[in-house]
Amino acid sequence: MPTDIEIARQATLKPIAEVAAKAGVPDEALIPYGKYKAKIDRNALPASSSQGKLILVTAINPTPAGEGKTTTSVGLSDALHRIGKKTMLCLREPSLGPCFGMKGGGAGGGKSQVMPMDEINLHFTGDFHAITSAHNLLAAMIDNSIYWSNPLDIDVRRIVWKRVLDMNDRALRQIAGPLGGVANGFPRESGFDITVASEIMAILCLASDIEDLQERLGNIVIGYKRDRTPVFCRDVKADRAMTVLLKDAIQPNMVQTLENNPAFLHGGPFANIAHGCNSVIATTTALKMADYVVTEAGFGADLGAEKFLDVKCRIAGLKPDAVVLVATVRALKMNGGVAKADLTEENVGAVRAGAVNLKRHIENLRKFGIQPTVAINHFYLDTDAEIAVIREMAAEFDTDAVVCKHWADGGAGAEELARIVADKADAGAPDFTPLYPDDIPLADKIETVAREIYRAAEVNIPPAVRKQLQQWEEMGHGHFPVCMAKTQYSFSTDPTKLGAPEGHEVTVREVRLSAGAGFVVAICGDIMTMPGLPKVPSAEAIYLDENGQIEGLF
Amino acid sequence: MPTDIEIARQATLKPIAEVAAKAGVPDEALIPYGKYKAKIDRNALPASSSQGKLILVTAINPTPAGEGKTTTSVGLSDALHRIGKKTMLCLREPSLGPCFGMKGGGAGGGKSQVMPMDEINLHFTGDFHAITSAHNLLAAMIDNSIYWSNPLDIDVRRIVWKRVLDMNDRALRQIAGPLGGVANGFPRESGFDITVASEIMAILCLASDIEDLQERLGNIVIGYKRDRTPVFCRDVKADRAMTVLLKDAIQPNMVQTLENNPAFLHGGPFANIAHGCNSVIATTTALKMADYVVTEAGFGADLGAEKFLDVKCRIAGLKPDAVVLVATVRALKMNGGVAKADLTEENVGAVRAGAVNLKRHIENLRKFGIQPTVAINHFYLDTDAEIAVIREMAAEFDTDAVVCKHWADGGAGAEELARIVADKADAGAPDFTPLYPDDIPLADKIETVAREIYRAAEVNIPPAVRKQLQQWEEMGHGHFPVCMAKTQYSFSTDPTKLGAPEGHEVTVREVRLSAGAGFVVAICGDIMTMPGLPKVPSAEAIYLDENGQIEGLF
Repeated sequence: MPTDIEIARQATLKPIAEVAAKAGVPDEALIPYGKYKAKIDRNALPASSSQGKLILVTAINPTPAGEGKTTTSVGLSDALHRIGKKTMLCLREPSLGPCFGMKGGGAGGGKSQVMPMDEINLHFTGDFHAITSAHNLLAAMIDNSIYWSNPLDIDVRRIVWKRVLDMNDRALRQIAGPLGGVANGFPRESGFDITVASEIMAILCLASDIEDLQERLGNIVIGYKRDRTPVFCRDVKADRAMTVLLKDAIQPNMVQTLENNPAFLHGGPFANIAHGCNSVIATTTALKMADYVVTEAGFGADLGAEKFLDVKCRIAGLKPDAVVLVATVRALKMNGGVAKADLTEENVGAVRAGAVNLKRHIENLRKFGIQPTVAINHFYLDTDAEIAVIREMAAEFDTDAVVCKHWADGGAGAEELARIVADKADAGAPDFTPLYPDDIPLADKIETVAREIYRAAEVNIPPAVRKQLQQWEEMGHGHFPVCMAKTQYSFSTDPTKLGAPEGHEVTVREVRLSAGAGFVVAICGDIMTMPGLPKVPSAEAIYLDENGQIEGLF
Repeated sequence: MPTDIEIARQATLKPIAEVAAKAGVPDEALIPYGKYKAKIDRNALPASSSQGKLILVTAINPTPAGEGKTTTSVGLSDALHRIGKKTMLCLREPSLGPCFGMKGGGAGGGKSQVMPMDEINLHFTGDFHAITSAHNLLAAMIDNSIYWSNPLDIDVRRIVWKRVLDMNDRALRQIAGPLGGVANGFPRESGFDITVASEIMAILCLASDIEDLQERLGNIVIGYKRDRTPVFCRDVKADRAMTVLLKDAIQPNMVQTLENNPAFLHGGPFANIAHGCNSVIATTTALKMADYVVTEAGFGADLGAEKFLDVKCRIAGLKPDAVVLVATVRALKMNGGVAKADLTEENVGAVRAGAVNLKRHIENLRKFGIQPTVAINHFYLDTDAEIAVIREMAAEFDTDAVVCKHWADGGAGAEELARIVADKADAGAPDFTPLYPDDIPLADKIETVAREIYRAAEVNIPPAVRKQLQQWEEMGHGHFPVCMAKTQYSFSTDPTKLGAPEGHEVTVREVRLSAGAGFVVAICGDIMTMPGLPKVPSAEAIYLDENGQIEGLF
């Protein structure tokens, strides 16, 4: 079978101007970045009173077998185009740094990919570089304010704003500086996160427009004074210059699928300490341009869909009209206890055992008033008997389950899914409701998610954490949603507990305030915000061949 | 009088595709970045056997009064177009970080500017971000190699490769890390430079093509082993992935002047620890496309022209066909002892006294076999008597001196200069020779520049520095040119000694090897490679107005 990169290289891309024109983008709204990518100037788009239907693609818990959430999003979008529906695809843009650690990258797979994959995975349109610049400008202005007589009385022990780089660089996780004496400043402990973990990434992805972006940037809490009162970004007077640095980054990026259909790739916040969805601006722009908008959320439905619904939809005033829940035979087998090496053998019992994971995600989504459609993302080794089990179990849960072959066949392989999902989206999800209201205490919000979604028997919020949450409520942040950070591999906080674990305890180790983004992060487990490189980084094998083509990146 | 930004905003820009087409760039070679900037794919340019004439614009020593070297380069290029000469302008691209420190930015001034100034001064086409990424990838791979059993036996005390950010951030000059224990790595001292100080910036600007770029990246010495032998970038296996990160950055950027003539803005190495010229690739591409190529070099002729001639021309096999030496009445008055506050008053005696600076630069350029043309960059307060003195003194030195009013009048104000310079360029500079040959010892090269150009009576190269230079000669770097780092304000190493100081001593405090770029840096004075922000950074006053226009940047 051809690899993703082989398929991608055989594709014929259309000029992005042509793709955009077909999507209704007038020439004056197109800001080209090379021949195959563009930013869309939202202010130059024609006024539109229409409002498309929003389709969320989520998945069961991820396993090393792969689920193909992005691939299914691409396939579904191409399929909707094929059945005559005016559709826009909205995905996250990938981070550059990790490409040099593990071989990977790309967006989608097989015949369901977005292009051009090398440009998307490297500097793309510079959004992440702009976020890095804006983030580090604020950091420089904080240390500069302290250097010049510290008029804000910032407590150097309580600065919570770190620096960022879009690089896997564990050596920067924890540093001491500035060293070197008077000319360099006051020494303190500090560190770097990877750019996707920046609160600015989350802000860019939740802002409704440039004014809202600036407002949110100003709201960032960068640290605390000696008297424990917060210091905001706007106190440091960095918010307006940061907005200038982000003025292009906030415009959505358009690329195309292998079938030359338009796709927005915009924003890529972490799916643990942030909400893991593409930008609100891309989504709302797409909803004005198309009748159907396909989007995805990071990780499995316990993290990704929950945050899409409780964080992104809540903050942006969006609601889903249909939800697709992606599962694969292989991933269900792993949830049923099969090791990765044994996945090639048929194992109907394991599929049945692992389907408890699927079932629980369906139950969870119903708590939001949503009836998902299961997409069985087909792999060539799947047997009819294995697929029959999933269908059977979905029927037991009174849920549609559709086999999709978009990986092998592109949009043509997902037409049945497209028809069902379009019908459901047309009907809408009138019963949709977030999991918890705005006006309960932050600790209760955390407990609600942990009990209702993770099915924790015990939720342990230590006194220091409760006190911190109360302080933020007193500061006026009590109405924020909570953004949960835990392992993506299990409903529990133990990544080895696959399937549908019960009776476990969830402990909130730490909470963090993202006052600009507008949520409180609850950390339940080890969360790494600056990855390292492996012993043999993929960078060692990445090169330009004699034709200037990139090898080794995918 | 209107400000630069007011003039810029009244300008009517042409689509960059139109500007490029007029310059002979076929559509397939144009890679647009928005509507008014583009990269040029050199591989898609038509073959050309022609070779244009290369015109260097340099200046007397800079003063706070301003000399207008870039402004004169733009004005001369526009003037050459006006008199019917097919011309290309090649300038450096500005750095983003410093824009948030001191108000400034822009390229050129008055009616002689390149556009669009806000985009040029912010992220532009992402070249500097790509350099930052490539630089920090190498840094991450070095610490990663040490983390994973240090197979190259790198001495953590002798790593010379720092990290970079395009930000004025003094707090990062000197840091200690990685801290935090086993998971993060082996603690050591380290720091950050600003991106323009990266050796990769110098390499990008000296590489003849992408293969040469990769070769030079591989040649970077990142540090030394316990046995003092060098460790190269290629030993860390980072060179090829870095080349991939730089594959777009190496393509020259095209923008336009206010008169809609094309300009390459490409690369921006420091003019002290690097050579301070735009990229060789932009220059050589321009020489294939146009009959006349106007380019500039950083700082005054003692630093900028010397490095252009001894470093860039030597490494790239270029030679200048004409040289313009820019002077202003105001700057000569400051060189003649007048304080900045008193510049508005006519002072013929001070012009005459300060002209020793001009005279010495003329003498110096003659040592390269070059007869410069003096451009008197006119300011509205200059009096006829003051200008007459410069003309008179230039005549004494047997040199053409032309009054140029391109700041006020654009290209029309520099037509006389254009005619004279075009004639001189047609005649060429057959006597051109670099100041020193390749095959003398490195210490002798430093001494030659210090004595011949800086007119030092004593050149002090301490024994430790001599030993270091000898070691590099033994490593095979003896043929490298030297890149001098000293104050730009004086021929001497004392920035307060204006005019034409004599009898001074030059001490080489430190030498650094840029084995990838291909030169040895000799540091004579305090050189700051990571600036700080002032007490009130200009960032505080930079914002987007209600029309989305950037205010406060210029």
